[in-house]
Amino acid sequence: MNEWGWPQGQGTLDDPYTPFLAIDPATVTANIGRLRAHLDGLGVTLRAHVKTAKSVDVAALLYDGGPGPITVSTLAEAEAFADVGYRDIVYAVGIVPQKLRRVTALRQRGVDLAVLLDSVEQAAALAAEGTGIPALIEVDCDGHRGGVRPDDPVLLDIARTLVDGGAIVRGVLVHAGESYHADGVEELRAAAENERRCAVQAAEALRAAGHDAPVVSVGSTPTAHFATDLTGVTEVRAGNFVFFDLVMAGIGVCSTADLAMTVVTTVIGHRPDKGWILTDGGWMATSRDRGTARQRVDQGYGLVADLDGDLYEDLLMVDASQEHGVLAIRPGSTAALPDLPVGTRVRILPNHACATAAQYDRYHVTEPGSRTVTAVWPRIRGW
Amino acid sequence: MNEWGWPQGQGTLDDPYTPFLAIDPATVTANIGRLRAHLDGLGVTLRAHVKTAKSVDVAALLYDGGPGPITVSTLAEAEAFADVGYRDIVYAVGIVPQKLRRVTALRQRGVDLAVLLDSVEQAAALAAEGTGIPALIEVDCDGHRGGVRPDDPVLLDIARTLVDGGAIVRGVLVHAGESYHADGVEELRAAAENERRCAVQAAEALRAAGHDAPVVSVGSTPTAHFATDLTGVTEVRAGNFVFFDLVMAGIGVCSTADLAMTVVTTVIGHRPDKGWILTDGGWMATSRDRGTARQRVDQGYGLVADLDGDLYEDLLMVDASQEHGVLAIRPGSTAALPDLPVGTRVRILPNHACATAAQYDRYHVTEPGSRTVTAVWPRIRGW
Repeated sequence: MNEWGWPQGQGTLDDPYTPFLAIDPATVTANIGRLRAHLDGLGVTLRAHVKTAKSVDVAALLYDGGPGPITVSTLAEAEAFADVGYRDIVYAVGIVPQKLRRVTALRQRGVDLAVLLDSVEQAAALAAEGTGIPALIEVDCDGHRGGVRPDDPVLLDIARTLVDGGAIVRGVLVHAGESYHADGVEELRAAAENERRCAVQAAEALRAAGHDAPVVSVGSTPTAHFATDLTGVTEVRAGNFVFFDLVMAGIGVCSTADLAMTVVTTVIGHRPDKGWILTDGGWMATSRDRGTARQRVDQGYGLVADLDGDLYEDLLMVDASQEHGVLAIRPGSTAALPDLPVGTRVRILPNHACATAAQYDRYHVTEPGSRTVTAVWPRIRGW
Repeated sequence: MNEWGWPQGQGTLDDPYTPFLAIDPATVTANIGRLRAHLDGLGVTLRAHVKTAKSVDVAALLYDGGPGPITVSTLAEAEAFADVGYRDIVYAVGIVPQKLRRVTALRQRGVDLAVLLDSVEQAAALAAEGTGIPALIEVDCDGHRGGVRPDDPVLLDIARTLVDGGAIVRGVLVHAGESYHADGVEELRAAAENERRCAVQAAEALRAAGHDAPVVSVGSTPTAHFATDLTGVTEVRAGNFVFFDLVMAGIGVCSTADLAMTVVTTVIGHRPDKGWILTDGGWMATSRDRGTARQRVDQGYGLVADLDGDLYEDLLMVDASQEHGVLAIRPGSTAALPDLPVGTRVRILPNHACATAAQYDRYHVTEPGSRTVTAVWPRIRGW
């Protein structure tokens, strides 16, 4: 038993206390292979975003066990990956002065950690740190979040402030966040091309002003998969693709069979008068993320499969309280509610892998088509 | 520095790396005092639900530092509280056979742990465990989740199955989950009275059939506060009231000044063209919970205050990605966007304290009206 009361590394998916998170490395490996083949064909490097899996064990599947270039969403991830030998890391959340001491500490350990910024004030703070920290300038391609537009003169002001202070203009970084709301192949291809064009335009503006700007970084799981031309781009960031989820399946980036991560829960009761099956997996087990609510097909809190991974016809997790899930047949469907006695274990296919995984401290690792649990892998938590 | 790279127990709210969770024990104590005075007036015991705070340190404020009766949502909570001396615990999620070994292990440590069930099959499994485990029968008062209706004959079948097998009918438990959707004082009072009436009716049915059923347990934070008569009820469960949140303020159970828990984040950028201030607190810091979206006033991902707790006029966290928050003025308001330079720390008042707290491993403990951090308290995680 570990500190949370779970038996560690027990034999099968029938053993750990529910709810728990199961992942299938064979599916992860297939998902990685598919993206890698696509990017190899386009001649760009994969700089995987580890914010989804937050696991050095999952990341080991990315680069044949060795450390490759990665993107992180927290300095805690950077530190955990540095501890196991990763040396090429981009911290892709806008830097603030207070965090520079942790950045500097990592760089002094030999990590080539680059930071992100989109303002002159951040550039001045970085330059004031005085340790030659490389910076990527965030460029906005679709109004989704932060970044400067590629034709905004502040782009050059930022670069000049960096260089004048002794920091380094590593290049530009773009994230096509609006691509998660794309509908159909044509919109996804257009989002990928827009992301590429903005990134290259910004990099060329920097180079015309005399900066090297060697890195042109783009990426989201949808645009990474749907890009057909990445001329001028040097690297692609994507993270969700290792596990995929129902939002990605709804966009059309994968099928439900590609989902490598599921939540295992146990049936705890029934309300036949309401057509409900109750489980011990509520929003604490799945997160509150309902990303598919904005898509054509709302999958509730998730699709439901048996322990072998076979989906029950039109069975959804339709509601959640903290430690209770409600399963019911999709509204409008004529499918029959399956007979699942108290104690039956089911898998929930989640809306959003990043959010669901964040509810857990560890993965239970399985083999495809098997209930055998082969390992327990920890997740990185906190900031 | 702790394992996540946070400095532990540093001096002020300006020190820990953001995002982090701040709580104010003086406000917690005031919230506890208010509910306790109300319940004392009604002559019932408080059996606090520890699922919100998941902290033995917060719970110590409930019962003058000693162990009192508690409700838990996970066996991990039961085990952690047993470790520090709590001996009267109700596990308020329907029991499944596989978890009985952990229940028995706790009982063998001297913990009077009662379980919850609402079916004959669960009762038979409990009886088969053969160790005199006390059970509360879950009764449904509003169709919210599980439970048997108080007039359903299966109530007596369950009790008979328990007794015949050597288990114990401890009583009944009701949770008025629909009260979270109540609108106004009259609806809340009606929900509280309905919850009481269902619980008492079920207990009387059990007693008429010869069962002791000494415990009549009701509770949710809204009904606990709005009940005006709890005749026949022996105990009230509530959990959220220790911290409160914007959903509770929207229902009218508290004011925003009663919120004891906030998320501290740092400004990382600006998009003046969009009226946005960006922070390093995304949904990983707040959770995806948007409970106020169903209320009269949608508070987005939360209201925004300065580090001293003073709210900015009509400033909301309007959007979130994993590690990015977007602050903007409430749609329709004429308030001006405040000038918050990169590096400024702000507090987010969350929609749902249970869900936001679940994103963290610890609390940073402050004093009211002060930025001093006096302690770091761990949270219980997992199942």
